[in-house]
Amino acid sequence: MSYQTPKGTKDLIGEEGEKFQKAIDVVRSVFEKYGFEPWFTPAFETFELLSAKGGLGEAVKEEIYYFKDKAGRELGLRFDQTMPLARIAVSKPEIPKPIRRYAIAPVWRYDNPQAMRWREFWQADVDIIGSSSTLADAECVAAAVEALEKLGFQDFLLRVNNRKTLDDIFAFIPEGKRKQAFRAIDKLDKIGSRGVKAELDKLGLDSEKILSLVSLSGEEAFEAVKGRRGEAEISSFFDYAKEYGFFNKLKLDLSLVRGLEYYTGLVFEIEAGKGVSFGGGGRYDDLIKTLGGQDLPATGISLGLSRIFEELKSREPATPRSKVFVAYVDEGLVKEAIRVVKRLREAGLRAEISVSGKKLSSQLEYADKLDMPFVVLVGEEELKEGKYKLKSMRERKEEVLSLGEIIERVKADA
Amino acid sequence: MSYQTPKGTKDLIGEEGEKFQKAIDVVRSVFEKYGFEPWFTPAFETFELLSAKGGLGEAVKEEIYYFKDKAGRELGLRFDQTMPLARIAVSKPEIPKPIRRYAIAPVWRYDNPQAMRWREFWQADVDIIGSSSTLADAECVAAAVEALEKLGFQDFLLRVNNRKTLDDIFAFIPEGKRKQAFRAIDKLDKIGSRGVKAELDKLGLDSEKILSLVSLSGEEAFEAVKGRRGEAEISSFFDYAKEYGFFNKLKLDLSLVRGLEYYTGLVFEIEAGKGVSFGGGGRYDDLIKTLGGQDLPATGISLGLSRIFEELKSREPATPRSKVFVAYVDEGLVKEAIRVVKRLREAGLRAEISVSGKKLSSQLEYADKLDMPFVVLVGEEELKEGKYKLKSMRERKEEVLSLGEIIERVKADA
Repeated sequence: MSYQTPKGTKDLIGEEGEKFQKAIDVVRSVFEKYGFEPWFTPAFETFELLSAKGGLGEAVKEEIYYFKDKAGRELGLRFDQTMPLARIAVSKPEIPKPIRRYAIAPVWRYDNPQAMRWREFWQADVDIIGSSSTLADAECVAAAVEALEKLGFQDFLLRVNNRKTLDDIFAFIPEGKRKQAFRAIDKLDKIGSRGVKAELDKLGLDSEKILSLVSLSGEEAFEAVKGRRGEAEISSFFDYAKEYGFFNKLKLDLSLVRGLEYYTGLVFEIEAGKGVSFGGGGRYDDLIKTLGGQDLPATGISLGLSRIFEELKSREPATPRSKVFVAYVDEGLVKEAIRVVKRLREAGLRAEISVSGKKLSSQLEYADKLDMPFVVLVGEEELKEGKYKLKSMRERKEEVLSLGEIIERVKADA
Repeated sequence: MSYQTPKGTKDLIGEEGEKFQKAIDVVRSVFEKYGFEPWFTPAFETFELLSAKGGLGEAVKEEIYYFKDKAGRELGLRFDQTMPLARIAVSKPEIPKPIRRYAIAPVWRYDNPQAMRWREFWQADVDIIGSSSTLADAECVAAAVEALEKLGFQDFLLRVNNRKTLDDIFAFIPEGKRKQAFRAIDKLDKIGSRGVKAELDKLGLDSEKILSLVSLSGEEAFEAVKGRRGEAEISSFFDYAKEYGFFNKLKLDLSLVRGLEYYTGLVFEIEAGKGVSFGGGGRYDDLIKTLGGQDLPATGISLGLSRIFEELKSREPATPRSKVFVAYVDEGLVKEAIRVVKRLREAGLRAEISVSGKKLSSQLEYADKLDMPFVVLVGEEELKEGKYKLKSMRERKEEVLSLGEIIERVKADA
């Protein structure tokens, strides 16, 4: 018999598990510093809710894990963390606004697995519900940017656009064809401007004009949005970014046309290299109302944590599972060894006691294999003086010390 | 339209979300101190794997969320964290042993929802794979006990039994009836000894003898296990417990007969009051071999975190979402307010800036409603001297201070 993870999913174990947990902790600590609070929602939601996003309806079944429970209730694994949040905003109008919540958890999509694309993957989201201020957008983006920086990333770009501005600038495209035109533009990275041109031509649109507009950058792009709807949001967002310190990462980018059935104002995408997205977001002022709730403006950004982690893990140095390993010469010393490991843990050290029941040399081999920097050796001889052998595995050095001295020595090791 | 969480599931949001995250952190920090490492596995597994536990086979379908993906693959949401761990132990024999892993995550069971029983609930597990030593059992239990203590629980009992001892003592029950007899004994809490007696009588067994054995406690229970198989494990476990410091919580309890198709040696149950279980575990030396893996001894314990949290949350004091709320007199001061909140966060404080776009009095009301202890007020007048108003919301006190002084003042507040 052999068992595997289901298609499109994977384990994160051993050293990878440690590193992933660390990455979660880094992101969390930033989100919390910004006053976002952790909300936990179930892994699955009613199909009624899931199918309400962007008016997808039944079609969403193709993209999600859909199932019925034994009473015939239609359910599905959540495909994002925004719909559960919107559900709560709709059903609990009494929660004080603005809401600031974060969620770091897996989501599931029935996608075609490929490099950096899984059927189960983690997202780290921050959202603010109940504020129409561009400051709310800036707060979410600032938190996401700082999280990436604290993870060690510097070279990423924040593409910025505005749904309203886009609709205004491209008002010359007949409304019936705008969606298809944007879908073509969205493929710029994949099929290049020549490919996009062909698709726009096929739609009978002025492909030259459209392509020249979406390829504007820097000052030219700002010129193009001047006097357009949403301009004030764009300029105050860029202004705020100066204060937060992420202005130098911004790019006003009229070719950013993703998720437009859903976003209503500013939209963002974090690009970490050509075609590599670390996440994105934007303002979705209509969602909660559409679901039958109050008219509540909302904005947020989602980091693709699984993908980010793939980029990260090769850089992050490995950390040993435990700082100290407590070994003992023979079974008669087990209780003494328990006393030692207990004291080490009380001192806040990550410490492990040998449970292999093997002889000393095997215990040491194991500590070495798991890269533990220190071994405390409990032996009859040293015990007579109330002392233990401390082996520094890196320096291959041994000293006979009291437990107090050992704790001091290990703690001093960075 | 109204949306709800699916039957048997619930949200943990706002203050509850904060408290739950804190509880997770407490448990995690203990587990890590013991050298357990975090492993992440997918929410769903192949049905082939899930159906292999305890020889349940097809019958497990009734108890889990079972579904097929679009390619017809049979899947199910995990119902525990042990089967995913066992899968990895089977399929990755190269991982150095002993493995020490922890997992704090939701699991799903298609159970009948009732008080303290949900279809989605969180478990916090520690397991050691690859050690047959009773010390491994003691390490897992010690970690679980310390986690509960760090959460603030003192009055719980650790019921201990041993599958081998049980089989030896009750060898007088014909093997074909033993399972049913144990199932009856397992209902002692629910139906009382009279009810159990009736069931045992119906099986044609010596109900008096059985009931008198399972009701033994203290010295008498130890007398009963003397000379029986597994006695050495029991006594060394109790011995080790003295060193770890949880001896006073132990109760040798021959009526603990749960999960016997699965456990092979010591078994544990944490009882936090009559009929209230905070979790349990034990040794499962056969599981990995049964799944087709190496002959790897294994032991572990699982805390029912959702249930524990229900007991906990009323005791835990509420903490404000943010320590400091930055308000401003008018929109012209937003950028100055961003500078302030940025500095507060850089100082490590959990700080939030007003994004409501409302006038000052509403901003203050909001900070009050969310119970934030401090408000920094950015106003034209104080700014002239490079200062800000610090409002202490609890003491209803105002001071005009520099940002450095504000940080000091807020940090000094416990």
